[in-house]
Amino acid sequence: MPINQIAVGGVQETYQPGVLKAALAEFISALIFVFAGEGSGMAFNYVTDNGSTTVAGLIQAALAHGFGLFIGVAVSANISGGHVNPAVTFGAFLGGHITLVRGIYYWIAQCLGSTVACLLLKFSTGGLTTSAFSLSSGVSVWNALVLEIVMTFGLVYTVYATALDPKKGNLGIIAPIAIGFIVGANILAGGAFDGASMNPAVSFGPALVSWTWTHHWVYWVGPLIGGGIAAIVYDFFFYSTHEPIPPEP
Amino acid sequence: MPINQIAVGGVQETYQPGVLKAALAEFISALIFVFAGEGSGMAFNYVTDNGSTTVAGLIQAALAHGFGLFIGVAVSANISGGHVNPAVTFGAFLGGHITLVRGIYYWIAQCLGSTVACLLLKFSTGGLTTSAFSLSSGVSVWNALVLEIVMTFGLVYTVYATALDPKKGNLGIIAPIAIGFIVGANILAGGAFDGASMNPAVSFGPALVSWTWTHHWVYWVGPLIGGGIAAIVYDFFFYSTHEPIPPEP
Amino acid sequence: MPINQIAVGGVQETYQPGVLKAALAEFISALIFVFAGEGSGMAFNYVTDNGSTTVAGLIQAALAHGFGLFIGVAVSANISGGHVNPAVTFGAFLGGHITLVRGIYYWIAQCLGSTVACLLLKFSTGGLTTSAFSLSSGVSVWNALVLEIVMTFGLVYTVYATALDPKKGNLGIIAPIAIGFIVGANILAGGAFDGASMNPAVSFGPALVSWTWTHHWVYWVGPLIGGGIAAIVYDFFFYSTHEPIPPEP
Amino acid sequence: MPINQIAVGGVQETYQPGVLKAALAEFISALIFVFAGEGSGMAFNYVTDNGSTTVAGLIQAALAHGFGLFIGVAVSANISGGHVNPAVTFGAFLGGHITLVRGIYYWIAQCLGSTVACLLLKFSTGGLTTSAFSLSSGVSVWNALVLEIVMTFGLVYTVYATALDPKKGNLGIIAPIAIGFIVGANILAGGAFDGASMNPAVSFGPALVSWTWTHHWVYWVGPLIGGGIAAIVYDFFFYSTHEPIPPEP
Repeated sequence: MPINQIAVGGVQETYQPGVLKAALAEFISALIFVFAGEGSGMAFNYVTDNGSTTVAGLIQAALAHGFGLFIGVAVSANISGGHVNPAVTFGAFLGGHITLVRGIYYWIAQCLGSTVACLLLKFSTGGLTTSAFSLSSGVSVWNALVLEIVMTFGLVYTVYATALDPKKGNLGIIAPIAIGFIVGANILAGGAFDGASMNPAVSFGPALVSWTWTHHWVYWVGPLIGGGIAAIVYDFFFYSTHEPIPPEP
Repeated sequence: MPINQIAVGGVQETYQPGVLKAALAEFISALIFVFAGEGSGMAFNYVTDNGSTTVAGLIQAALAHGFGLFIGVAVSANISGGHVNPAVTFGAFLGGHITLVRGIYYWIAQCLGSTVACLLLKFSTGGLTTSAFSLSSGVSVWNALVLEIVMTFGLVYTVYATALDPKKGNLGIIAPIAIGFIVGANILAGGAFDGASMNPAVSFGPALVSWTWTHHWVYWVGPLIGGGIAAIVYDFFFYSTHEPIPPEP
Repeated sequence: MPINQIAVGGVQETYQPGVLKAALAEFISALIFVFAGEGSGMAFNYVTDNGSTTVAGLIQAALAHGFGLFIGVAVSANISGGHVNPAVTFGAFLGGHITLVRGIYYWIAQCLGSTVACLLLKFSTGGLTTSAFSLSSGVSVWNALVLEIVMTFGLVYTVYATALDPKKGNLGIIAPIAIGFIVGANILAGGAFDGASMNPAVSFGPALVSWTWTHHWVYWVGPLIGGGIAAIVYDFFFYSTHEPIPPEP
Repeated sequence: MPINQIAVGGVQETYQPGVLKAALAEFISALIFVFAGEGSGMAFNYVTDNGSTTVAGLIQAALAHGFGLFIGVAVSANISGGHVNPAVTFGAFLGGHITLVRGIYYWIAQCLGSTVACLLLKFSTGGLTTSAFSLSSGVSVWNALVLEIVMTFGLVYTVYATALDPKKGNLGIIAPIAIGFIVGANILAGGAFDGASMNPAVSFGPALVSWTWTHHWVYWVGPLIGGGIAAIVYDFFFYSTHEPIPPEP
């Protein structure tokens, strides 16, 4: 797909096979990612008999989401750009890197992939609950909102610096690892307080399948604000102006 | 070995030294991978006195298999293509990337490597049991079958997107890491329910050496179905049609 | 920014937009890194009810700092050089790779980023303490000083060998991972004894926000000495003299 | 240093500055690696009050050695070839990739680096014991010998396939990660039984500083046999004959 079709485009884009293929790639990536991530939480509940969060559980969740997102991004990078996250798609839209229509396709595909992953998890674990994200004791809605904003800022900023920026250079090679691992790092911090979603699709599937909507809006508004700020900051200050620091002899 | 010899070929391929060398590479890769993976399970049993699965145990298994498969794929990538898994070989066969005869050599080599690894583990641990994969309580055969299908779908899809696809570009550089880590991510989810094999050879060695065949077919049928679906889906939708998304200035 | 402006420069550099942008990049990188790293320590305290250090806690801290620094370095690598650490900036200054004025901008930006991260953590966790680094029982100030010197030596030596050295070749591609993971490795060793900071900015933010200054100087003097030694050793013995070992046929 | 000076050479090589610089690089790499690896074991003893091995302890040791060796290899890769292990040096010597004299320099440097790391650990932990590698209960000398042989075979085979083989291609970019992580994977399996050294220098430093020589020969003979077999197998079957599998359209 030539540059101008992505950058401009619009309604007619909906008829292009490229958009549907990209959406399919996002669907599959979200499915693979959420199956590992949400599945690790269900495994924790299974192994600990629904015990409360432990440090080992944080490590398990961080690695499952970190590794899973790394692969989710990698396998769709060449086809759809490897968003796997409505907040990333929103940030890319704000920066003008994706059209509105394409973005809507991505959002639907990401949420569908997450939902199908949860349905498959429910069946293959013999009917266990697909636990939704929730606030821990002592954590208010505003605390969680700021938490999601800051963490998703870090994630989308990483996407911009390592994947979207045309001056990224060799950073692009390890971009999928970086994008996965910033999520892993943030879960080790924020996972104990609000589950550390940073991704509305990741929260949507478990909420829908377990029909648990308490505070669900936090996991949409927080990531979209954080991702939006990252897009605006990176675009304004760094996107086309910086020059790589040359090695000095 | 020129392209057409791999793509076509047949019975006469059995006499080519390249096939035997590739099979030897698969044998060694499977040996290295299973030694670390199955060995980590035996170490868990040794350290916990055959305790039941814990979250730490899932992390241990995920890292041992994730790191081990990464290396198994890397060290044979240039020689045999780095399959190290009958389900990957089957997926590559379905997509026409490997001949039937070469695939049979690979299967035998992979299962042999796994078996020799288990024999070496049995000796070097003073005779401990090489525990076979099994279903956890509350997990039916059909649950486990779907679990193996979904997880192996993710694995073989990753192999296609990052290693087999000629349009992979720079993704090929980190392909062995991605292939190893999707297995690690899936073990953190599925390991608690059916051991999360995704690889018939990985299940075969321990089953043979410990002579435990209960539900063994699940660990062949599931991965082959999941790997087959991934191969067909990727080949049909993405293999030669997509074009890389260009960076936009 | 052309080479000579970085290498020479001086007071007039303070007016260049490049310096301010680089400082902003360092600020954001430090914020992302410390949010994950310090946040993981606060999550440990939250989950364990302020329990004493465990092996799982060391692993959690190592992964949070290792992954977080990897991303912090990656996202600012092309803009500021990816220091994210006053000891790295000091080492780069000693080797003549950065001017004094630019270095001071970096130091301020790094410490500010760490402080803002701690303020955001305090708010988003509902007011939990941002625990400062401290010496464990049986560890004297001199023990900790040597510990920080040796660990930071390893870190800054890694920065030189994989990122600053113009002969680094392909090592530059994985440099951000290496720089993050040496910190992760060192935390698994030194974290139990003095927290394993290796980075004055990482220690400064939590100390300021929690107003805890006991032994704080150790976390400045140790890293600066260790980083300085690494810079001098690498510059003197390896910087421009070694030649890559060629592959042999 | 031109190819023929490395490949041939001999006694006169001892006067070349390149050899001394390479030995210094090996010394520093071994110091950094052993400081993290052995230090993590001492941290385990400190945190658990000399408790017996746990699964978390295996994970800690695997990550500390895996990350630490990755960095040790990376920082000396361009200067000395990144051996950081007498078994790797022995394997490279058997394959004709390094002269006897240079190999002896490397061995001395690696053992010295390990010893200095242990002395620094002893001081900076306030005098804790640098525990030597030992056999767990139920593990005989012959068990451990085979264990070290198999694990070091995997390590040195990885070095050959990803670093020494001139046909390695892009694998060389991730070679330091692969070399570190195969050690991490093997520790998750073998660490519970004999500590999983795979590296005589890693065993030598702690043994010397704690003056514990029980079964010490196992940690030299096992790795040297395993590394030697890997070198011979890779050299004989794969070194210059295989051709990369081409991507197929």
